[in-house]
This record gives sequence, C-alpha cells and structure tokens, in this order.
Amino acid sequence: MKSDLDTLMQAHNVDALLVCGATMHNPAMVYFTGVAHVSVSDLIKARGQEPVLFFNPMERDEAARTGLRTIPYAAYPREVMPDGNETDAVRVLAHRYRRMLADQGVEQGRVLVYGLGDAGLKHAVFRALEKLAPGLSIEADFDEKVLRQAMATKDADEVGRIRRMGEITVGVVSRVADFLSSQRARDGVLVDGEDKPITIGDVKQRINLWIAEAGAETPEDTIFAIGRDAAVPHSTGTPSDVLRLGQTIVFDIFPCEKGGGYFYDFTRTWCLGYAPDEALKLYEQVHSVYHQVLADMRIGSPTEYIQRRTCDLFEEMGHPTVLSDPATENGLCHSVGHGLGTYIHSRPWIRLNDAHKDAVQPGTVLTYEPGLYYPERGLGVRLEDTLYPAADGAMRALADYPMELVLPVRKV
Amino acid sequence: MKSDLDTLMQAHNVDALLVCGATMHNPAMVYFTGVAHVSVSDLIKARGQEPVLFFNPMERDEAARTGLRTIPYAAYPREVMPDGNETDAVRVLAHRYRRMLADQGVEQGRVLVYGLGDAGLKHAVFRALEKLAPGLSIEADFDEKVLRQAMATKDADEVGRIRRMGEITVGVVSRVADFLSSQRARDGVLVDGEDKPITIGDVKQRINLWIAEAGAETPEDTIFAIGRDAAVPHSTGTPSDVLRLGQTIVFDIFPCEKGGGYFYDFTRTWCLGYAPDEALKLYEQVHSVYHQVLADMRIGSPTEYIQRRTCDLFEEMGHPTVLSDPATENGLCHSVGHGLGTYIHSRPWIRLNDAHKDAVQPGTVLTYEPGLYYPERGLGVRLEDTLYPAADGAMRALADYPMELVLPVRKV
Repeated sequence: MKSDLDTLMQAHNVDALLVCGATMHNPAMVYFTGVAHVSVSDLIKARGQEPVLFFNPMERDEAARTGLRTIPYAAYPREVMPDGNETDAVRVLAHRYRRMLADQGVEQGRVLVYGLGDAGLKHAVFRALEKLAPGLSIEADFDEKVLRQAMATKDADEVGRIRRMGEITVGVVSRVADFLSSQRARDGVLVDGEDKPITIGDVKQRINLWIAEAGAETPEDTIFAIGRDAAVPHSTGTPSDVLRLGQTIVFDIFPCEKGGGYFYDFTRTWCLGYAPDEALKLYEQVHSVYHQVLADMRIGSPTEYIQRRTCDLFEEMGHPTVLSDPATENGLCHSVGHGLGTYIHSRPWIRLNDAHKDAVQPGTVLTYEPGLYYPERGLGVRLEDTLYPAADGAMRALADYPMELVLPVRKV
Repeated sequence: MKSDLDTLMQAHNVDALLVCGATMHNPAMVYFTGVAHVSVSDLIKARGQEPVLFFNPMERDEAARTGLRTIPYAAYPREVMPDGNETDAVRVLAHRYRRMLADQGVEQGRVLVYGLGDAGLKHAVFRALEKLAPGLSIEADFDEKVLRQAMATKDADEVGRIRRMGEITVGVVSRVADFLSSQRARDGVLVDGEDKPITIGDVKQRINLWIAEAGAETPEDTIFAIGRDAAVPHSTGTPSDVLRLGQTIVFDIFPCEKGGGYFYDFTRTWCLGYAPDEALKLYEQVHSVYHQVLADMRIGSPTEYIQRRTCDLFEEMGHPTVLSDPATENGLCHSVGHGLGTYIHSRPWIRLNDAHKDAVQPGTVLTYEPGLYYPERGLGVRLEDTLYPAADGAMRALADYPMELVLPVRKV
C-alpha cells in the first residue's frame, strides 16, 4: 500500500522517487495524483516526505485538484541555471531536474524513475543529469521492489474503486449478452431485424458506447473474438467477422476509470445458440480447473503455485502448457493472472519462477484467468475474474457474473 | 510526409529510427503502424529500408494487421547473447536491442529514439546499450528535425482521416448545442425537465457518450468550462458547476480515432441565453482577429507570423499578450495554434521565436485558436478550427461549424 512506500524506500536505500509524465493514462503518476488533466508534470517523492507535483501555470487549476503539494515549473526559470545563458534544451531540462530534486533535499543518492515519457528525450535528459550531478544515481526499479511492491496491495479506497469498475464491467457484459440473445439466427449466423448479419465490429461499437455511458473507458480496447481469433489469446477480434452459432467467443473486457485510473479485468467464453461437443468439453475443463484452483487460493498462497497448479491440472487432462513447453501456442499458453490497479498488469505476477516469491496477502487484488487454445481447430476458452480476499481469507470475485457457456438466441 | 523520412535521415546523418512502445495511444508508433493492439513492441526503420515491427508471439495477429514487416522477439532468445548466461534483465534487453539493430544493418551510427515508454526502464536499457555498443549513439530528436519534420505535412490519407475526425467533432458539438438549447432556464440557471440544474458534469457525460457513439474517443478529456474556469485556458471545467446564463463557456474538444490515432481540435465559446456586454465585446474582438489573421494565412506564411500578428492585433485593442509579457495570465496567454496529427500537439509550432522557421506548406494541417482571458472577471473566449490549405493556397477549416456566441435556451 501507499503507506508502505517510505519503509520500502528505506529498505532499498532509495532517496527519492521521480515520476514523469501526464496525470492521466500514466499508471505510476495516477497512483499518486488520481486522474487529472495536467498534461506536462513531474512528481518527486523524497523519502519521509509527501510527494510534490510540478506543473505548468496554464494547468494550475488541474494541478490543484490533485490535492497534492504543487510547485510551478516557473519557479525554475532558465536565468538561474548555474552556467548562465544555457542554450542546449537537454541540459536546461537536466539542470531543472537537478534543482527540483535539490529543493526536495535530494542532492545526491539513488533516485528511482517511473512514469511514461518519450523514451528518447527522457534518456537524453537523464544522461545529461548524471553528468551534471555525479552524486545522483538515476535508476529504474527494474525488479519492481519499491513502487510496484507498494502497489501490490490495495487500501480500502482502491479496492472500492476497482469494485466499482467491476460493477460497470458486469453491467456492460450483461447488456452485451441481452443484446445478442435478443437477435435471431439465420443460416447459422446471428442477424438483426433486417436480416443483416451482426459483426464483431457491431458488438464492439455497442461495448464502447455502453462503457462510455457508464463513465468508463477501454484505452486498450476489448477482446471480442470468435473462432480462430478466440484461439489466439491476445487477438482482439476481426471487426468484419460475423457471429456464427456454435463457435467459441472469447469476451475479455478491461475497462478503467475515465482518464486512465483503476482497471477491472474480466473474461467469459460464449457459444451462441449451442455448444459443439469439443467446445463444451474444453469449457468444462477450464471451468473445473478455475474452481479447483480458486478453492485452493487464499491468503498465504504463493502466486507461483496458482500458475503451477493450473498447468498441472491441464496437463493431467492431456493439454500442453507452458510448464512443459514455454513456447506452446496450443493448450495453456499464457500466465493465468496478474495483479492490477492503475496498471492493468502489475505485481503480484502469476508465473512460474516468480522472482518475488509473491503470495496472496490482505489487500491483494489479482485476476485468475485459466484458458485453453487450439488455433488450428478454431477453439479458444478463457474464464477470468478479478479477485480479492474475503474476510475468511478465501478469494472472491469483486463482481459476480454467471459463467454459462451457451448464450441462447432467438430461433428464426 | 512519411515519404520524406529517408531524405531527412540522410540530411541529419541518422542511421536508424527506433520507436518504442505499444501500437496504440503512442503517436510516434501509430504514425507507422496505425492503431493496432500490440501492447509490447519496437519498430526499427533503418535508413533506406522499410520499417520492421517487433512483437510478442501472443500478439502475432495484431502485429500482422499493421501490414508491416514483422519479427517476433522470440527470434532473439536469451541463450544466444554473447556472454552466455545473462542474468541482469537490463543488460539482456540492451543485448537484444543491439542484435535487433544489427540485423537491420545498424551496427554503429546514430539512432534516434521515439515513442512512449517507462522513463526509468528505457533510460537504464539505453545506458546499458551505449556501454555494450560504443559505436552506437542513442539520441533524442530533441530539435524535432526528423520524425516531427516529416509528420508536419500530411498525405491525402492522413488529411482524410483528420477530416473524418472533424466531421465527428462538429457532429458532437451540434448535438451538445441542440441539447443545451432544448433545456429551460430558471432563476438564471439551465434546468432539466424536472427542474434539476444541469451541470458541467452532465454535459461532459453526454459528450463522452456521443463521441463513443461516433467511434472516437477523448483520451485527454474535453474542456467544457464556464465562468472563471473558462478564463483559465487549460481548465477542463468543474463537474459540479451549474450552467448560469450569460457566462462564457469555452468548449474545446479534441477527439482522436479509437485507440489513439489522428486527432481533430476545435473550440467554440458560448453564452447561454444572452451575452453581457463585456463578454460580447471580448468575443467580437477574438472573432475579428480570427478572421483577419486567417485571411492573411496561406501557403508560404511563416507560422511565427501567425502568433506575432495575433498578439499585435490584440495589443492594439489594449489587451496584454505573451508578446509584451510572456508570463501574463490576462489577455492572450498562450500559443495560438499548433500542428496536429497522431500527436495532438506537434510541428509546425505557432510561437514567437520559432527555431524551425516553419511556414504553411502544401500538406500542412494546423489549428488556429486565438483567445482572450480575464480570470478575475470570470471571462474567457477562444475560437479554434483545424485548418488545411485549399487549392487556392488559403487556409480553410477541415470541418465547418458556425461561430455564434449566444446559444438560445427555452424560456421558463
């Protein structure tokens, strides 16, 4: 949790966190600022101190809305730079960072840098800063031991925000299900009132609309994929594809608060009208593994165990998995979950050989998403909920939604 | 235009462009890839060659949809790294970049880096790359002389996409105007059918919905600001504010193609019901300057002249501007336009002392947005269109919309 940051900084000998970039669609920044409309900003959190947000005067109202301590960049005019008439834009910015850090008491030591920025510009400026201030070590938290460690457990406010996104998510999923079920099938394809086939693109347009109506957004799109696309885990679907009955549809939706705040992550697999035997069998296997592993999962469970146990169960059923073949594109070919918050993917990671040895803790929010994929057979099944430990230590979905495979449609 | 890239790379002695980050909401990458759902990718464009996109196998379908030449990261397994059992994650990535560049024929020389990434991680990896490959110079295009120079003029496809976003924009603005005009005023405040005051938040919710309906999005929000907020150029508005008649509303909307593609940028200023004399006077001055400067603007016009001429005209009217006081928060306190494309703000810049000495050219798309602001009087006026040179060389809005100040509302 955020309240762990000073302890983590102390443990890893970190003097300051420097977070770059806008206060929207920028997970590390939004973690501190909430979603605000400051397009150019930096945030410095020195150890033992409250964070400070730097902003341009034109965006002063938006900066103030974050509730943080704020300092305008105008407090660092070019004139006061040590070597006078500075003309090199990169060095000017490096000087400014040096002074911003010094004013927060950080004249030397380890600075961990986070946040989204132009990769080339940031590298150039930090390289110049390292030259200007050899006592400063500008580093990445590559091992995710400080900020992402703090983020890995959520406080009550954060859980409330994720839960609210969960309610929005299942509300939209329910509207999609109702929409599909109210259409007719003709020649094995879903059609609208004018006998026009309904496409993946048509459904996605409605999803976007209903997400917007609910005040959320899907910055990374939504997976609504049928047939072969459903069998490629990250295929988002082909807009022109029609909805053929009896094919598996993977519907993976991960909206966030408007402006890039907290996410929810959720997947169901549907067959319209009926499920062929091979789809049903795959679905029942995923469903059974989902519930077996979920029943084992509780505070204290190593997250690596979740991946290993899922692979073991699938392999017992005869499916290839990443356990025996890390490069497999058949069977289970991905990690079966991840932590989430302002990052859609974050610690705790659920994977074999988890370097962090993470375990489920009070405040952990993670997804569980076992799946099976057979691209050549055009078959894909995945089920996913976002989970949080209940009072008894067991994991429960933050939003309830049924898991049925077959979505009935109207007969012709 | 994109077709200028090789010439620009040659002129500036650049051997390769390396673009980092996802293929959505990442302007430099989307410029090459279009909007696609590849969440982890790099693109290398060696001089004289077509760009190559690197991707993770799970996202192979989305990578293929870009139509570019693609190479999976799996082509660079850790095992073949020069010093064998590499364990440092940063160095592993640096090694991989080195090999990816070498395979494109770039073993030494200047590499310009673009694209959005985690600022700390990218700096660490590029620092390691510079150590591994001292013959490579990893640089930022800080002066915007290569990619942003190419982007500054648009080909017919790009102009078509921006124009389409313009149509969507004015469609939504028209719906907002109709919505407001169909409401009633009570005690000087706009109210709905149940006499409940309509708020800024209510209007924004509709804007988001209508934008989504049109298949676009507003990743950087929308400015719909009244009274004092309207007088702070970048204030997006206070959701709980009611709509009081006779106050200036600045409505600045800048949607982009779903997933972070091409933008449009557009502003109107409205007063509901009536305009007080001081608002009307300010509006007429901005309107008059808009048309005077627009009439002067044509292929060949230096963009700096646009800023200077606008300031001069406002100063003749007695307003402070950034020409005489760069830090002013009254009068004209911002640049009066900018190029746009996949970046909402890009070259040509419209500002005093433009280092590029840019001029309007065939293919230039830019905004013109003069405004006047008096925060203490709660008054702000801005008018903006996105412009493109017509066949006769004069600049015309890519989407037409009336500029009236007063928006009539229903009487009680």
